[in-house]
Amino acid sequence: MKKEYAIGADIGGTNIQFCILDNYGNISEFFTLPTEADKGRKHILKNLYRGANEILSKNKHLKFKGIGVGSPGLINISGKVVTGAENLPGWNGTNIKKFLEKKAGLPVYVENDVTALALGEAKFGAGKNYNNIICLAFGTGLGGGIVINKKIYRGKYGYAGEFGHIVVNPNGPKCSCGNKGCLETYASTVGLKRIVREKLKNKKNSKLIKLADNNIKKITPKLLFDEYKKKNKDAVEIINEMGYYLGIGISIFTNIFDPDIIILAGGISKAGNPLIDLILKYSYTHALKFYKDKINIKISKFKDKAGVIGTASLVFE
Amino acid sequence: MKKEYAIGADIGGTNIQFCILDNYGNISEFFTLPTEADKGRKHILKNLYRGANEILSKNKHLKFKGIGVGSPGLINISGKVVTGAENLPGWNGTNIKKFLEKKAGLPVYVENDVTALALGEAKFGAGKNYNNIICLAFGTGLGGGIVINKKIYRGKYGYAGEFGHIVVNPNGPKCSCGNKGCLETYASTVGLKRIVREKLKNKKNSKLIKLADNNIKKITPKLLFDEYKKKNKDAVEIINEMGYYLGIGISIFTNIFDPDIIILAGGISKAGNPLIDLILKYSYTHALKFYKDKINIKISKFKDKAGVIGTASLVFE
Repeated sequence: MKKEYAIGADIGGTNIQFCILDNYGNISEFFTLPTEADKGRKHILKNLYRGANEILSKNKHLKFKGIGVGSPGLINISGKVVTGAENLPGWNGTNIKKFLEKKAGLPVYVENDVTALALGEAKFGAGKNYNNIICLAFGTGLGGGIVINKKIYRGKYGYAGEFGHIVVNPNGPKCSCGNKGCLETYASTVGLKRIVREKLKNKKNSKLIKLADNNIKKITPKLLFDEYKKKNKDAVEIINEMGYYLGIGISIFTNIFDPDIIILAGGISKAGNPLIDLILKYSYTHALKFYKDKINIKISKFKDKAGVIGTASLVFE
Repeated sequence: MKKEYAIGADIGGTNIQFCILDNYGNISEFFTLPTEADKGRKHILKNLYRGANEILSKNKHLKFKGIGVGSPGLINISGKVVTGAENLPGWNGTNIKKFLEKKAGLPVYVENDVTALALGEAKFGAGKNYNNIICLAFGTGLGGGIVINKKIYRGKYGYAGEFGHIVVNPNGPKCSCGNKGCLETYASTVGLKRIVREKLKNKKNSKLIKLADNNIKKITPKLLFDEYKKKNKDAVEIINEMGYYLGIGISIFTNIFDPDIIILAGGISKAGNPLIDLILKYSYTHALKFYKDKINIKISKFKDKAGVIGTASLVFE
């Protein structure tokens, strides 16, 4: 296979990650620039082009096939952010593809950030040897991506894979989307913080609070999992609550998709095998008996770079 | 397009339906034979071949491309019933494809009955103008089928689309699969009968019971919907309970698949537009706000023949 090169740019709330990726999945020139989201749309676009141009200028010896861009929100087929990018003020309505193709003179592929991540893992990462892949990306919220036969499954409006907003408990807590009991209210940073508040509201002396500078708001997913591994009772209760509903979610994806593999990415996935064991426990009690010992969950291969590698992989889809 | 012909055979608990289907979706020679499931595997196979052979003998002027067979249960790629066909004693383990290809001398395509139904509706029926289709088939239980880009999505083990067994209420009633709160415990004949027992247990004088020869066991989905349309309070309460959880289920499929269309088939779907209106009401309160007024639900075009048309359409996949 002839070597080809792509540029990836993953736009986050704080930083934009950039890289070069070849069609064998090798990454180089990884760096970040600040998004400067608070300065508005034009600044974000300026920073996006600045990073891409830096790679182009420094690598004139390489022939790039295109630029892949990941953005929060719903992206339509013409490369425009339609809705859902509320973290980036003024970003909804931006036609990223049109802007960047004109500036950089290369084909530009724009996709929802988590969807792109799923493709990257499917092509080059934890899903390399599989065809049908479900990807869950834990961040502030919970995003998802679906890859079927090694291609992104987008759905009618390009909105497929909104795993964070499937109802796992009809009587559950209020979600940012306006509904109740969405998976995201349990399995995300926002969800974990909510469970922490609920479980510790009458436990001012919890060791967890002490370990977080006596500030309940400073309890992070990392601290929770560190203490969970040490069998801290409060941490176990909190992580179990998340794991129970995440297990239900995974059982739903399993019964529906019968997938080859389920890949976990993003912050909470760093907890690794104890997280997988916990999810499997509750997946097996909720999925069809047929799947007992057959559910295949893996942590993303590319970890913190999974997003940017995913965006670059769009060029090779 | 040159005209081609296929034979369809849909194996049910009581009857086997047969038909001829052409590649334009026209059906002819529709008839049924008894399954004689109680007499065991050999009898079922004998009846299956008898029907297919009847069509072949009577239509020697037609060149058949193959025979499509639908069966309950999980069918593997070699055309064998692996598991899940408990309604047909001794049927699990039967290699339908091997048997029928040898007897009939034509290519045989075997698929789960509901999956086949979904393909038939996707190719020739309510889903004709759409690519990505979710199909729910209400019977004793609740089956499902997924069609992506006009092709059946089967998943790793061929078990994809088990919509009846996604959890919609973690604290819900016991399901036949061993889990709790599966969609099937609300949205199926078995589910409706369960809701009837629960809602009417202290209402011996309910009009519904009177209308069913004073026998609560004789309350059918049809009676419930007839009375629901007449605003019978008990019927409204029972049908609403089903509709609420079915709405949650449809919201889950919508948030996950962003499908072009959701097709309802089987007994309960005969309730028609009042059922669709009810489901939409509860789907919109549980799906992402984006989908408000965008969810597209239709009743199957082929009604009681949807299954057998689906099995024949396997030949044209």
